[in-house]
Amino acid sequence: MDWKEKTLNLARNAKRASLNGLNFPEGSKDIFLSRLAGNLEGKRKEIIKANSTDVAGAVAAGCSAAFADRLRLDNERIGKMISAVELVKKLPDPVGEKIWETERPNGLHIERVRTPIGVIGIIYESRPDVTIEASILCIKAGNCVILRGGKEAKNSNRILVDILKQSLEEAALEKDVVNLVSAGGRKAVRYLLSLSGYIDLIIPRGGESLIEAVVQYSRIPVIKHYKGICHTYVDKDADIEMALSVSFNAKVQRPGTCNATETLLVHREIADSFLPRMGELFKKAKVEIRGCPETRKILPYSARAFEEDWMTEYLDLIISIRVVDSLEEAISHINRYGSMHSDSIITGNAESAEKFLKEVDSAAVFHNASTRFTDGGQFGLGAEIGISTDKIHARGPMGLEELTTYKYLVYGHGQIRE
Amino acid sequence: MDWKEKTLNLARNAKRASLNGLNFPEGSKDIFLSRLAGNLEGKRKEIIKANSTDVAGAVAAGCSAAFADRLRLDNERIGKMISAVELVKKLPDPVGEKIWETERPNGLHIERVRTPIGVIGIIYESRPDVTIEASILCIKAGNCVILRGGKEAKNSNRILVDILKQSLEEAALEKDVVNLVSAGGRKAVRYLLSLSGYIDLIIPRGGESLIEAVVQYSRIPVIKHYKGICHTYVDKDADIEMALSVSFNAKVQRPGTCNATETLLVHREIADSFLPRMGELFKKAKVEIRGCPETRKILPYSARAFEEDWMTEYLDLIISIRVVDSLEEAISHINRYGSMHSDSIITGNAESAEKFLKEVDSAAVFHNASTRFTDGGQFGLGAEIGISTDKIHARGPMGLEELTTYKYLVYGHGQIRE
Repeated sequence: MDWKEKTLNLARNAKRASLNGLNFPEGSKDIFLSRLAGNLEGKRKEIIKANSTDVAGAVAAGCSAAFADRLRLDNERIGKMISAVELVKKLPDPVGEKIWETERPNGLHIERVRTPIGVIGIIYESRPDVTIEASILCIKAGNCVILRGGKEAKNSNRILVDILKQSLEEAALEKDVVNLVSAGGRKAVRYLLSLSGYIDLIIPRGGESLIEAVVQYSRIPVIKHYKGICHTYVDKDADIEMALSVSFNAKVQRPGTCNATETLLVHREIADSFLPRMGELFKKAKVEIRGCPETRKILPYSARAFEEDWMTEYLDLIISIRVVDSLEEAISHINRYGSMHSDSIITGNAESAEKFLKEVDSAAVFHNASTRFTDGGQFGLGAEIGISTDKIHARGPMGLEELTTYKYLVYGHGQIRE
Repeated sequence: MDWKEKTLNLARNAKRASLNGLNFPEGSKDIFLSRLAGNLEGKRKEIIKANSTDVAGAVAAGCSAAFADRLRLDNERIGKMISAVELVKKLPDPVGEKIWETERPNGLHIERVRTPIGVIGIIYESRPDVTIEASILCIKAGNCVILRGGKEAKNSNRILVDILKQSLEEAALEKDVVNLVSAGGRKAVRYLLSLSGYIDLIIPRGGESLIEAVVQYSRIPVIKHYKGICHTYVDKDADIEMALSVSFNAKVQRPGTCNATETLLVHREIADSFLPRMGELFKKAKVEIRGCPETRKILPYSARAFEEDWMTEYLDLIISIRVVDSLEEAISHINRYGSMHSDSIITGNAESAEKFLKEVDSAAVFHNASTRFTDGGQFGLGAEIGISTDKIHARGPMGLEELTTYKYLVYGHGQIRE
């Protein structure tokens, strides 16, 4: 079989398994997760060995230190995978939940219940922990997965998928619930993205260029987890101590994450009292400031912000700062330059907060809290497969419920349409 | 300006209007709908005149009678449009509805509320009533629309869009809430489908080839309303009188609709007692029967069903009939050949019904009722923009709620992430 036939076969098998999976035996998904935790624990050495082959290969091919770090699996990271498996096992099963029901005048009883989506394709880069983390969430929600990871992680992904398949079989589930596409390079990805008869949803996990390529070629619905150009807006009615603490946290606590703030907007009336103290805090934390002309008058040590800065996800200890004339200007800056991810207003004025929360067109909008809270765990969703910047199907942190769809069950006693 | 600039400008204006629309003044959408009903009433003559130019043009160009009929607007159809406007006005506004909330241990209060999706592109064929019906549902859910109808309906669409814009202005809403793309032919459609920065969702309304072309070129999420290959399965434990009445209704009551049954599956054990009576009823109603070999033994006057018949949406007085050995065979026939639209089991056995409802992978699954009930109005959703055969975002009848997304509102008092 060539790569094309192999990929088609695999997609067909996944579809068949997903149809069987509409009636997974009670409890079998959690047995699978128990077995998986145990098997990962028992095979730590083999996983690390397979992974070290990948890391050595990538280093020999001249990859960056950051790339090698994302690729590496050590005991700590395997421990985190196992914890994730145990966490997902504890989450309630979303499948079968009745989310709406009605009784019609003709006596038809109609229910809307959550069901698995079917087959979900995950296209990702070099992080092999995605192999486990994405699979367990998809499977707990009753779905089958087709995984396509970066070629640099091929040995790591192969052993992890073997462990997934073994755990499925130990739970009396079909091993075709999880599938790894390994042959065919980019052509295989494009081909996969054309198989709309077998795959129901594609979730790309990775940088912007990966996501754009997937969107360009896919005939299957895609849920995008784009970048986070997040804002904190310090309103004229802000409590200054709170504004300092929240803005600092939003930028500095973990700057490499998508929910870290990249741009600080400051109302003109509070700029003189707020910005000098904010600037000092950022300076001490070695945050580079790129300011608008107004900001640079107050913080002469800051660099100049160019138009491009407002559109940049630094993922680093860099912040752009802009002084605005009004709440309206802050909102329109965010809707123009932001990525519809997470934005916060710091204000003591409830009316301004309501306007901001209503008119900022983002997945998560905060009043007096750090943008860093946008996260499935922090929101109480249990776990997340990512943070959707799309508006269709799932917005913001995407947990188990967002990995389901629904169907209508209609109960009658012979009703016909007049 | 050339067509490209015109289209880009229009998309930009729609996006701007949609951002303003996140805070539409209370009640203004319903004022718009009142004005629209009045204006359609007042301009019946002008609408019919513009439409007759279109119909004359299409007939002169040699269109079919069915095509001319879909294109035609008469007093009755305008009356139906006005009724639809009045119905949608009465429906509750979905925007702002709180669909979930939680209080986190750190004191963050998190709400998930319904919001408009933003800008929705409707791409359709020659039916000018879609111009009104799609627009009013999108706008009631707080969205802006970009309409692209068939060129044969251009005069009808122009006057209807003028009336929409006039009604928006009378309600103090921006006229850019509704936009009609009229220049540029197919190139304009392809270009429109690339404008993912301005358009949030595409809903194609029309035949399979239109939908496939849209899916092929779109970089914007698409919700598909594909064909309906619907099944009625008469189980061995069916009440025969009920099976006759429901199966007849599902095929004959309105065969041209997507929720009409195209294939009847009959359990072997009931075939001898059920099929002869069913065949008589169909014969009387001039329904052409295409049967499997088993069916043809019992109904010798039926034609032969070929493999292709199981995959055909007849939309006509034709039915394919297949005798199956088991419930499982019925389910796997439906999952293989169906279009995941609407399927029904007729049985007195509750366990068989549960299995069918769980394992048939369709948007609506019925027990002892006609597939013809899959419809937003019949389901109590008020109105529908169509019936989604997708699993992402909306499945089955797509009403006002399905034309919204949600956002997270997070209320804090200075919380930062540790």
